[in-house]
This record gives sequence, C-alpha cells and structure tokens, in this order.
Amino acid sequence: MGEVSMQVTGVMARVRGDVFDSQCPERGVLDHITSKWAVLVLVGLRDGPLRYSALRRAIGGVSEKMLAQTLRTLETDGFVHREVVPTAPPQVTYSLTGLGQEVTVHLAGLLDWIGTHIPDVQRARAARD
Amino acid sequence: MGEVSMQVTGVMARVRGDVFDSQCPERGVLDHITSKWAVLVLVGLRDGPLRYSALRRAIGGVSEKMLAQTLRTLETDGFVHREVVPTAPPQVTYSLTGLGQEVTVHLAGLLDWIGTHIPDVQRARAARD
Repeated sequence: MGEVSMQVTGVMARVRGDVFDSQCPERGVLDHITSKWAVLVLVGLRDGPLRYSALRRAIGGVSEKMLAQTLRTLETDGFVHREVVPTAPPQVTYSLTGLGQEVTVHLAGLLDWIGTHIPDVQRARAARD
Repeated sequence: MGEVSMQVTGVMARVRGDVFDSQCPERGVLDHITSKWAVLVLVGLRDGPLRYSALRRAIGGVSEKMLAQTLRTLETDGFVHREVVPTAPPQVTYSLTGLGQEVTVHLAGLLDWIGTHIPDVQRARAARD
C-alpha cells in the first residue's frame, strides 16, 4: 500500500470510525440501515407505530418476504420494536425505538434532500445523453 | 385500500415526496445513493478528489467491478465527476460535484452516528440473545 493511500485510509478511519473496514461492526450496521427497504421502513415509522399491513401498503413494491426480513434485522439491531397484541387474530404493530428515532433523523434528512433535488439529478442525466 | 392506510400513504407523500412510490424517480435515486457501496464512495470522496486505485484501497472489500459500476451510476446521476488526465498511462480521478457534496453531508452524518452508536446496537443484539 503506497504512502498516499495509507494517509487517506488513516484520515478516514480517524474521522469516521471503521465503517470503511469491511471487518468492523460499523459496516454491518451501515449495510442493514441502508438496505433496499430499511430506509423506507424506518422513515415510514417516523410518525408513529404502524401495523404490518399498513406498513406494507405504504411502501410501494415491497414483498411480504423482504418486509418481514427487513423488520427482523432492524428489530435485532434495536431500531424497531415489535409488539403483538393477543387479540384474535393477533395484531402485530411496529414502532421505532429511541435508537431508531435517532438514526431516522438522518435518513429523513436524506429523503427530504432527494425529494427537493430530483430535478437536479434529472438535469444531470439529460446533460449526459 | 382502507381509510387508515390511505391517510398514512397521503401523509408520507405530502411530507417526503414520492420516494415511497416505487414508480417515482425519487426511488431510483434513493436506491443509487444507498446501494451497498455508494455511501462509502461518496463519503470517501468528501475530503477531496481521489484516484481510482486510492479509492479502491480505502474502501475495504469492494471489488473492481462493483466500484466501477457504483462510480458510473453516481456519475450518471451527477454526484461524481470523472476526470481523465491524458498522461501515459492516463490518470483517472474522481471527485464530488456540488450536488454530490450536498447529499454527502447527510450520508456523513449517518456514518458519524453509526460510529458513535455501535455500542448501543451491540447491546441491543446481546439483549436479544
């Protein structure tokens, strides 16, 4: 590894933890949070708890399997809380934990930015064609 | 679609654009930015331009193919600028555009948050075991 790239890697590790290192736990959490559906699940729960069916309808294009898998990962990492009310049939509701609310602030900021700047991206794409 | 879920979807669309709609361009941009490697490429370029080889060394675990594909997508969307200096051999350098710098602010905030809160996630995981 050359001197310059060692400096680069060193700066990144110092400033931003070890997310650039594929062996560090930060990378796993990043992969979970930014997985195809996790961003939408987390931001979708931002305004309050939702039942599984409402969440699924709100997120266009998500399959049963992918939504269930995403929710399970987010629950394991402590971002989402799953509550089962033992009615008949049981009602399953999902909500953000405190940790989930914190990380979702960043994701919601990202979605807001995308919503505002989509014309800029479309102009950039058109300029290349 | 029931009344409650229509309200939910309506609130999301009003507040956060159409990223929840799989047919809208916002969704595509979200997928590009939060793809497995794009977050690390964008934040990796935050401190200044990097040559392809330095970028690849900085991002642990990325393959040639995935890095090239990620850079191409980010270039098409107008987030990354690719410059070729016609030396022998040619030097290829990547940098953030103005648009790329803006979106990277949000991503860097997310990475910083992960770096600080990884012990909380690990505690949550341990509590479930």
